[in-house]
Amino acid sequence: MRSLFMDPLETLKAYTKFPSVSTDSNYAEGMQGAREFAAGLLKGLGFSVEEVATELHPILYAERIVNPDWPHVVLYGHYDVQPADPLDLWTSPPFEPEVRDGRIYGRGTADNKGPTVVHMTALARVLEAYPELPLNLTYVIEGEEEIGSPSMDQFFETHGERLSRADFLLVSDTGSPNAGQIVVTTAIRGLVDLEIKLKGARVDLHSGIHGGAVYNPLQALSEICASLHNPDGSVNVPGFYDDVLPISDWEREELSRYPETEESYQDLLGVPGFFAAGGLRPLEAVRFGPTLEFNGLGGGYQGQGSKTVIPSQAFAKITCRLVANQDPLKVQDAVVAAIRARCPDAVDLDIRIGGRGEPYMVVPPGRPNARVDQPVSMVRAFKSAETSIEQAFGKPPIFLREGGSIPVIADFKNRSGLDSLMIGLFTPLDNLHAPDESFDLSIMENAISAFEQILKDIAGV
Amino acid sequence: MRSLFMDPLETLKAYTKFPSVSTDSNYAEGMQGAREFAAGLLKGLGFSVEEVATELHPILYAERIVNPDWPHVVLYGHYDVQPADPLDLWTSPPFEPEVRDGRIYGRGTADNKGPTVVHMTALARVLEAYPELPLNLTYVIEGEEEIGSPSMDQFFETHGERLSRADFLLVSDTGSPNAGQIVVTTAIRGLVDLEIKLKGARVDLHSGIHGGAVYNPLQALSEICASLHNPDGSVNVPGFYDDVLPISDWEREELSRYPETEESYQDLLGVPGFFAAGGLRPLEAVRFGPTLEFNGLGGGYQGQGSKTVIPSQAFAKITCRLVANQDPLKVQDAVVAAIRARCPDAVDLDIRIGGRGEPYMVVPPGRPNARVDQPVSMVRAFKSAETSIEQAFGKPPIFLREGGSIPVIADFKNRSGLDSLMIGLFTPLDNLHAPDESFDLSIMENAISAFEQILKDIAGV
Repeated sequence: MRSLFMDPLETLKAYTKFPSVSTDSNYAEGMQGAREFAAGLLKGLGFSVEEVATELHPILYAERIVNPDWPHVVLYGHYDVQPADPLDLWTSPPFEPEVRDGRIYGRGTADNKGPTVVHMTALARVLEAYPELPLNLTYVIEGEEEIGSPSMDQFFETHGERLSRADFLLVSDTGSPNAGQIVVTTAIRGLVDLEIKLKGARVDLHSGIHGGAVYNPLQALSEICASLHNPDGSVNVPGFYDDVLPISDWEREELSRYPETEESYQDLLGVPGFFAAGGLRPLEAVRFGPTLEFNGLGGGYQGQGSKTVIPSQAFAKITCRLVANQDPLKVQDAVVAAIRARCPDAVDLDIRIGGRGEPYMVVPPGRPNARVDQPVSMVRAFKSAETSIEQAFGKPPIFLREGGSIPVIADFKNRSGLDSLMIGLFTPLDNLHAPDESFDLSIMENAISAFEQILKDIAGV
Repeated sequence: MRSLFMDPLETLKAYTKFPSVSTDSNYAEGMQGAREFAAGLLKGLGFSVEEVATELHPILYAERIVNPDWPHVVLYGHYDVQPADPLDLWTSPPFEPEVRDGRIYGRGTADNKGPTVVHMTALARVLEAYPELPLNLTYVIEGEEEIGSPSMDQFFETHGERLSRADFLLVSDTGSPNAGQIVVTTAIRGLVDLEIKLKGARVDLHSGIHGGAVYNPLQALSEICASLHNPDGSVNVPGFYDDVLPISDWEREELSRYPETEESYQDLLGVPGFFAAGGLRPLEAVRFGPTLEFNGLGGGYQGQGSKTVIPSQAFAKITCRLVANQDPLKVQDAVVAAIRARCPDAVDLDIRIGGRGEPYMVVPPGRPNARVDQPVSMVRAFKSAETSIEQAFGKPPIFLREGGSIPVIADFKNRSGLDSLMIGLFTPLDNLHAPDESFDLSIMENAISAFEQILKDIAGV
């Protein structure tokens, strides 16, 4: 076991070399390689490993369960990665990991292979010191996170009951502001995905010969889309904000320690200005507020110069991010109803309903309105996260909601009753989902130390 | 000469095979091929041909001037065509002309290569019968009509004086309702072309991590675009309608003979309903009213499914159609000012100013308010159009304004004093600027006969 984890950097390099792109069937071999590599690591740690078949990429389900009376932690990760294109924007090839200036570069080094190696290395070291560590462990490593976890629903049908015997989930698939300041993520946003498709004339029309008689689908699309926000930036859909919880005082306090100013955030994004709805500050809006965003919009001539057509069709791709307590189905129905009500009769409307993801939130033990029945091991884990991270990184973590979505986290809660301790190991410099993805080696080293201590504290050794 | 024009269909096929897309620099070879082909036809007809260099696509200027005392007609056409995309909607490839059911299909067959072949074939036949035909002729065939004729201004600087010695212009670049009812076009709309370009963040942003803080450029674009029309469909730009002339009684009378009902027009377009502004009927609005249309709109993810980005950029391509007496510069300034005033500060705005075209109107000789000093040859031509078209097609033409734009027609008037006799040879079935563009072979045949007679009547033979 020791040999596998004495050099976590070499382990991560070896894991990264498998091009495990889940969305592209050309990478089936890379997917299999990464899966077998991860399974090998788990077996080396003494887990019994089951490869759970799905319609696409199998899920690794591993257990090291010794005594039902011990605390029981589930660890979650994913062995799949985003596509690496555009390849020409990478400094070194995405699947030939390279260390430069204290970072390891390669697709998946941060999302999510690096954090997985951190967890396993910490576990290996603790198990080496305490071979009889009184802690039951379950590992779930899926291969479809980057394509929306379509097989997890079936997985919870078959394995949800066994998972519900555990105490809580330990995850590192969220972000922190920089290598010196770790965030414990307390919430992730939910998601609603839909697409408006408008159709006017049978074919594109000459805008001179027919212009004036018909409703241009792009005009109708603009009018529908423009109607979906109020002038103050808030979403103009009846009921949209009904279930949004207010921000707690302790959350504002935690955010005040966040090492990012509005000026530095504006520099990072390169925007001419901010535009946050509902009276929120920009750094509040991205984590405490729901959104309705246009991800893509199109129709008519897309080339250089001009073309005088009235296009036959137009589309808008929309996703909403939902905060804790909002119901994706209710929001989806409200948005769809608003769009239908605002579409003029002179164009035909079709709405594609995409996926939905529940929001998730956990109030850390000890904070106002925390769950009163939190398992002892989870209370210990949150408490240890605070002290262990301070010891390893020099500063205590900030407990903060995040704007991204990991729908499977809500599934662990809703299907198996497990809350999550999410310790963010990405930083904005990691270029997630983009060229030159990398993982910070100082974070890797410090996080291993922190996780060693957290695991020992949960086990009470 | 005879061999070139004994089969006008073959001539048109050969002409259509050159992919002369003026807006796209990838088609330089097609442009050159079409230009050289048209020049060859003119030389075959005995013209001296000059290739007038421009910054983009040269203009063909050809003369057959024998006696300064003869009537002098200028013929105008263009050898460029619209882009052919979307290619997958064509039944046969756009630049491999194919005859099906009495029509020739291909990009440019109607707009404007077919009418050019009609004119030249008629001329060839008249010149064959009357080699000494007492008629001076000038031909202007440009290569930038589909992109707003940007080089014609310079052309009028160098050639406007020579053109002003002619009597009037003969053009077929307008439409008729069907193959049995020809329209003599009395007015064309002017054009203003511009493009809104919005920029938000430096790069596309993750809509989870950053959603809520920034003004999505697609949202800003929708809001700006939606603001440009009132709920009744009229254009919401101060001053837009200031100079619009009322419709004359004789124009309404001519329109009453137009063989199209609103029902048949709706069937033709395949629209769920009409939407005409200013209290006009749909068939009035397309010729007597101005418009502001979105020709293309885009930004963000354009592929299948969803991608959760906040795009960095967004664009809208806009053209306005202006009716007689409106000033394109004044309208352009008003639209640009409205867009600037309505663009939020949190996105950067850039406006591309494209071409402008003046509207044009000629009142046919004999109608109220017609010019009193119309040249004799032009009065003869209008009179002959009425009888020759009735003879060839079975019905007299309707004299009617049209919605399309040929800015150069106003230039011929404003720069060289030439009014135009515009005989429409397109029909709505031709799919101008759209997939499956085609030209009606019965119109081609009858129009050649009509033009033979018109040319003979102008010359007095």
